Amino acid sequence: MSLLSDYGLEDGFVGALHSVLRRRVPDLPIVDLTHGVRRQDVRAGSLALLRAVPYLAPGVVVAIVDPGVGTARRGVAVRSGPVSLVGPDNGLLVPDVEALRVASGAVELEDRGYWFHPPGPTFAGRDIFAPAAGVLAAGGDLSDLGPPLERQGLVRLPQPVCRRRPDGALEAEVTWVDRFGNVELAAGPSDLPAPDAVAVSPAPPAGQSRPVRVVRAFSELGPGELGLLVDSYGHLALCVYGASAADLLGTREEGLVLLSRL
Amino acid sequence: MSLLSDYGLEDGFVGALHSVLRRRVPDLPIVDLTHGVRRQDVRAGSLALLRAVPYLAPGVVVAIVDPGVGTARRGVAVRSGPVSLVGPDNGLLVPDVEALRVASGAVELEDRGYWFHPPGPTFAGRDIFAPAAGVLAAGGDLSDLGPPLERQGLVRLPQPVCRRRPDGALEAEVTWVDRFGNVELAAGPSDLPAPDAVAVSPAPPAGQSRPVRVVRAFSELGPGELGLLVDSYGHLALCVYGASAADLLGTREEGLVLLSRL
Amino acid sequence: MSLLSDYGLEDGFVGALHSVLRRRVPDLPIVDLTHGVRRQDVRAGSLALLRAVPYLAPGVVVAIVDPGVGTARRGVAVRSGPVSLVGPDNGLLVPDVEALRVASGAVELEDRGYWFHPPGPTFAGRDIFAPAAGVLAAGGDLSDLGPPLERQGLVRLPQPVCRRRPDGALEAEVTWVDRFGNVELAAGPSDLPAPDAVAVSPAPPAGQSRPVRVVRAFSELGPGELGLLVDSYGHLALCVYGASAADLLGTREEGLVLLSRL
Repeated sequence: MSLLSDYGLEDGFVGALHSVLRRRVPDLPIVDLTHGVRRQDVRAGSLALLRAVPYLAPGVVVAIVDPGVGTARRGVAVRSGPVSLVGPDNGLLVPDVEALRVASGAVELEDRGYWFHPPGPTFAGRDIFAPAAGVLAAGGDLSDLGPPLERQGLVRLPQPVCRRRPDGALEAEVTWVDRFGNVELAAGPSDLPAPDAVAVSPAPPAGQSRPVRVVRAFSELGPGELGLLVDSYGHLALCVYGASAADLLGTREEGLVLLSRL
Repeated sequence: MSLLSDYGLEDGFVGALHSVLRRRVPDLPIVDLTHGVRRQDVRAGSLALLRAVPYLAPGVVVAIVDPGVGTARRGVAVRSGPVSLVGPDNGLLVPDVEALRVASGAVELEDRGYWFHPPGPTFAGRDIFAPAAGVLAAGGDLSDLGPPLERQGLVRLPQPVCRRRPDGALEAEVTWVDRFGNVELAAGPSDLPAPDAVAVSPAPPAGQSRPVRVVRAFSELGPGELGLLVDSYGHLALCVYGASAADLLGTREEGLVLLSRL
Repeated sequence: MSLLSDYGLEDGFVGALHSVLRRRVPDLPIVDLTHGVRRQDVRAGSLALLRAVPYLAPGVVVAIVDPGVGTARRGVAVRSGPVSLVGPDNGLLVPDVEALRVASGAVELEDRGYWFHPPGPTFAGRDIFAPAAGVLAAGGDLSDLGPPLERQGLVRLPQPVCRRRPDGALEAEVTWVDRFGNVELAAGPSDLPAPDAVAVSPAPPAGQSRPVRVVRAFSELGPGELGLLVDSYGHLALCVYGASAADLLGTREEGLVLLSRL
């Protein structure tokens, strides 16, 4: 089983998920993909999960970034090839279902028989999602969790921006700033406006433009030099060797950058 | 086995606990309840453990928040129904023992045969508590760890404040500010001074008072509106939908708030 | 298996390591020693691993602090008694190999058959080191990973500073500032310039000198009093009871301190 959330590790939220799962499937291997998604940032959670998809261990994935906890938003489970995804129906799971290609079924988590029934509705991870995942991990079927739903009816997030402008420049959304300050963009190598060197600027409105060298590895860069490479997820990413490109550029997640020919 | 501490995850303290346990019980499932308790805050650790108790996997619980490490404070193990608690005798474990109801035995961790004997006495988690937990998890008995002690002799923390004032207002201690800024109080729904709307102010001395709407879920609140709900642990909690009530109120853990009729 | 890195837990890097390992060895116990090493600080990672060595569970250790990822720096695996170490050849592993005494073999991770081949070379942990560790954990041999190399050829870090000055004072490097503010030095009890009380000052150039009392446990100290004890790793460490010695002294990792007779 694999878990991803915005719960952080300071409080006992993640420990409660594990406790609930251990009571149901004591020996099941559990992978914590990350619990450090920015709080209540469904888009960031979805992108983090998408990066994990090609490497997932088989089994159930529980993903929880859930600003609508305790509202009418649905909980869902979707089976997609060797993986079942469990979480809120708020767009978090859809790109991952699509990356996994074959969705063989989807249900709403409506059968209260396997839920915990706590005094208040603020912790669906512990009370609904983990128990649902436990049912599946213990050999249960999607149909044990609730009625089927149409996959087409799942809530969808907007696609991250990646568009070519009339002047040939590429406008791309920042999809991720990692711990090392690498700035991943919603773009791949075929989106590059020039094969070797480009300029980057915040966009729009465009700010100061800086030269960027297209490289294959951090180490081709000189001290403080800004580079652009294809990262291990297949995205274009801005980087500085041994330092933070995000700090150099003042870039934050969800911003846009503009790549143009030098 | 379940672990809780104030060790954080930056240093290798938690890894050392796991290493010691894996040498003794390689395949035992381990749940990290949290290691993010505020450093040396025994009260916060005790409250975090108490929130975990109803959901604990069976087995041993090691809880360590231990400002007195290396002093004469005792290490103890207490069996309580299906769970055994291991940790320092500084009040951390008592509320949990009581929540678990039946304490069937308690011992002092005095038998040095299972301890590690390192160059210095600063890491009882690795050197005493984890080895003791390993003995129990490997099938050992409390009596393998040291001489029995009277449960009544365990150190106790003061109860969090929850009192009605002569004017009907409720004075309640903040028991927890979580990652999302929800402010949990040492009070339950029956303590509410009015069924639907109340005012909250820091207390005493009372500061500015604000209206609070009693709701069942975050989502009933308008933008920036302050709410009070019963959280998933059965406590009253102040909240804001999609934002931090703690930031709005300037509230910190261990503070007091005053709830009064509007 | 034991893992150590500077990946942090905010991104999905550690989750990816676990996913890759779980696909290969689903039931293998995994210990996360820590992933909180300061980013790209090979020295700090090496010291953290060295503290873990005496308590390691048997099996493979994957250690990754890898500023040279994607360059010509080699990946290596070294067998040393009951433990195999896998990671970059940048000095991270050598002190640990030496602490483990018997290195019975070493290879370069050059056989690309077990690698993942992702779009970019930025994540050797997921694509090379974890798969290599999986091969060993699944029963493979060092020779399955690549050609043998001479252990003497491994990159070495400089030893942390620990020297006696002509005036008898001890100059020692700070090897670790932990979460509680304890300041560990590259020195042991036999390096003490006086048996009971010393003075400490930043060095060189020497700043303000402060008296320090040599104690056996935090609790022998009065409020705010600075102490020096032998910590649970056998190092001299500066401490304050219930507070941070690092904050009191303004000390940071990699600094030097000077211990002299009062």
